[in-house]
Amino acid sequence: MSLVLDAAAQDLLFREAHTANTFTDEPVTEEQTQAIYDLVKYGPTAFNQSPLRITLVRSAEARERLVPLMAEGNQPKTAVAPLVAILSVDHEFHAELPKLFPHAPGIADMFFSERAVREQVAPLNATLQAGYFIIGVRAAGLAAGPMTGFDFPGVQKEFLDDDHAPLMIINIGKPGPDASFPRSPRLPYDEAVTTV
Amino acid sequence: MSLVLDAAAQDLLFREAHTANTFTDEPVTEEQTQAIYDLVKYGPTAFNQSPLRITLVRSAEARERLVPLMAEGNQPKTAVAPLVAILSVDHEFHAELPKLFPHAPGIADMFFSERAVREQVAPLNATLQAGYFIIGVRAAGLAAGPMTGFDFPGVQKEFLDDDHAPLMIINIGKPGPDASFPRSPRLPYDEAVTTV
Repeated sequence: MSLVLDAAAQDLLFREAHTANTFTDEPVTEEQTQAIYDLVKYGPTAFNQSPLRITLVRSAEARERLVPLMAEGNQPKTAVAPLVAILSVDHEFHAELPKLFPHAPGIADMFFSERAVREQVAPLNATLQAGYFIIGVRAAGLAAGPMTGFDFPGVQKEFLDDDHAPLMIINIGKPGPDASFPRSPRLPYDEAVTTV
Repeated sequence: MSLVLDAAAQDLLFREAHTANTFTDEPVTEEQTQAIYDLVKYGPTAFNQSPLRITLVRSAEARERLVPLMAEGNQPKTAVAPLVAILSVDHEFHAELPKLFPHAPGIADMFFSERAVREQVAPLNATLQAGYFIIGVRAAGLAAGPMTGFDFPGVQKEFLDDDHAPLMIINIGKPGPDASFPRSPRLPYDEAVTTV
């Protein structure tokens, strides 16, 4: 075997995991979201900048504000998912760098004093963290339903601020009946990987 | 326990894993890179677009062309890492969609006929896949050293083409002596996660 990760974990995180479009009623607890975060926070980002922020939509009132901002095809599932998470990018992440990168306290000023630079690097690093987060949801035995079909300016205005840009929205829960499409084919190794 | 993933897997993928800056001489085999790809290819992307492409730099000749294109601080480790992978975004990913999304064969034309649209969505989805790939490297018992400090146009010109944009470069291998910095602090849950 070329992988060290045990087969059950491979199945849980990748092989048997599917994007879910329906969910059971079972709630996603605060203990679960904390455990997911406390696992995936260790995933690497450049200079440990960790620009991903997560807004958990738990109240009925917030859910009612969110659903109309989703693309039509995403509205029904977002209305009933046990939990919905708005993932966003903090463009002011450099304010945390003295804490996050303590062995080089000058780095925030050296590299990231300009907003344009931060807006260039933060989405890439936050998106890496979004990938870790999806894996973390699966590590909790839950299914994720990531979506980019929504009104980005509307979600930013309603839930975030000028310093936080939406990245994606993820429905989270135990998969319900007919939760997933059949597995679609993936590119074979030779079509995605080249050796030079 | 709020996580289903076993503790050893949690440690392997997140808690004990570190970005590596030095490596042993042990080679990274083709079997390992194939196993990593065949695991992480199942990670979700929008419409299963799977736009990530990977160029494995295995020959000494290719390594010699790559190293001078790295930022100075990244050159020594990229020169000696057992394997270097150039991750890129395929902006012509829609050509594969009839194969990748067979139950809706019209989707390539419906949503992705314009290059500008593809250039907007592909980096996000390829970066999610880059996150899965880093996890996959760790699943193989290897360490990753992801870098964005390099000459992007130079790497594109030297190793890719107009349809493939570099995303990041990752050194891969078994960690060597003093491979990692001490773990830097992460944002506590309450500072990264908000509930509404």
